[in-house]
Amino acid sequence: MSLFITFEGGEGCGKSTVLRLVNEKLLSEGYQTVVTREPGGTPIAEQIRNVILDKNNTAMDSRTEALLYAASRRQHLVEKIWPALKEGKLILCDRYLDSSLAYQGGARGLGIDNVLNVNRFATEDTYPDLTLLFDLEPELGLQRIAANASREVNRLDLEKLEFHAEVRQTFKKIAERFPDRFVIIDASKSLEEVVENVYQTIKSRLK
Amino acid sequence: MSLFITFEGGEGCGKSTVLRLVNEKLLSEGYQTVVTREPGGTPIAEQIRNVILDKNNTAMDSRTEALLYAASRRQHLVEKIWPALKEGKLILCDRYLDSSLAYQGGARGLGIDNVLNVNRFATEDTYPDLTLLFDLEPELGLQRIAANASREVNRLDLEKLEFHAEVRQTFKKIAERFPDRFVIIDASKSLEEVVENVYQTIKSRLK
Repeated sequence: MSLFITFEGGEGCGKSTVLRLVNEKLLSEGYQTVVTREPGGTPIAEQIRNVILDKNNTAMDSRTEALLYAASRRQHLVEKIWPALKEGKLILCDRYLDSSLAYQGGARGLGIDNVLNVNRFATEDTYPDLTLLFDLEPELGLQRIAANASREVNRLDLEKLEFHAEVRQTFKKIAERFPDRFVIIDASKSLEEVVENVYQTIKSRLK
Repeated sequence: MSLFITFEGGEGCGKSTVLRLVNEKLLSEGYQTVVTREPGGTPIAEQIRNVILDKNNTAMDSRTEALLYAASRRQHLVEKIWPALKEGKLILCDRYLDSSLAYQGGARGLGIDNVLNVNRFATEDTYPDLTLLFDLEPELGLQRIAANASREVNRLDLEKLEFHAEVRQTFKKIAERFPDRFVIIDASKSLEEVVENVYQTIKSRLK
């Protein structure tokens, strides 16, 4: 059976690591998985990703950014997600439309519904079957990132922290709005516990 | 006084040539004009334009294309159109949101309202003060292009002609929907006549 699963959360929440480890478990059990990520995943989507992430593009407006994410998402959906769903695959996708709602809609202040409307056009209402929200205090997430990069923690200024706090709060609001597909994962637990929690959550959807 | 004027129409309708000639007349009379075009007009918008127009991107989906045009439009608006309007300039813009409605909404079949919704997000409802629609039989437009490029006319197949006919019909529908800002220009007339018509139309709005 095909299943479209998205991994969402703020910076340093551990979703990408957990995705990789859970995928290994699923593969070892014979599940046919497709691991992919946003933005990107296809040549055209990667070109769009390059425009979004280009460090010289400091003049980029928030709405431009939201539209580029939606464009990249559309292409990724058409070329990668839909074909994999047709083939009955289990798709593990690192970020999808909820990231746009949380980052552009919430933290950048464009409004969840405004960004959702653009993404309904982009996805033709293709929602995940299951969205795993890795919930974590932004302070902890940013500490993890800083620890990984061997950087000092106090480099993170207040503005950044407020931004990430807003991302977290918006993710929670979206989870309340779409309770059928959202499962909140306590990402403050140990890696082993989080992997097990995510694995069991996915397995219960596969029955 | 600032005025935002867009030049719209199908292939070979002559709008870009007329825009250039009318701009010369306006400049010679001391008007402060800004000549610009879509997609593009700023570094980020040009990067997006390159993704749209890259000939290798044959796998590009129509909705991806519509979202990229909207992203490029947004950036162009923020960096070029709005500042120029603030400075009281007379803006002559080669294509704007009506091109998306006609090409993606009409000819590519995405629906005028669907594409309009995305563009309302992109433009925050910034419509031109005046839209000059260069109306022309697609056969004539394509003949003009072929003549310019010294190519044979019969290279244009039926499918292409149908596409361009749909673009023309959709432009007319949009003009009916926004009668306050649209003026239809008969682009089958001689270049001199069209330039004079456009010039007088703009002058009447400047009074």
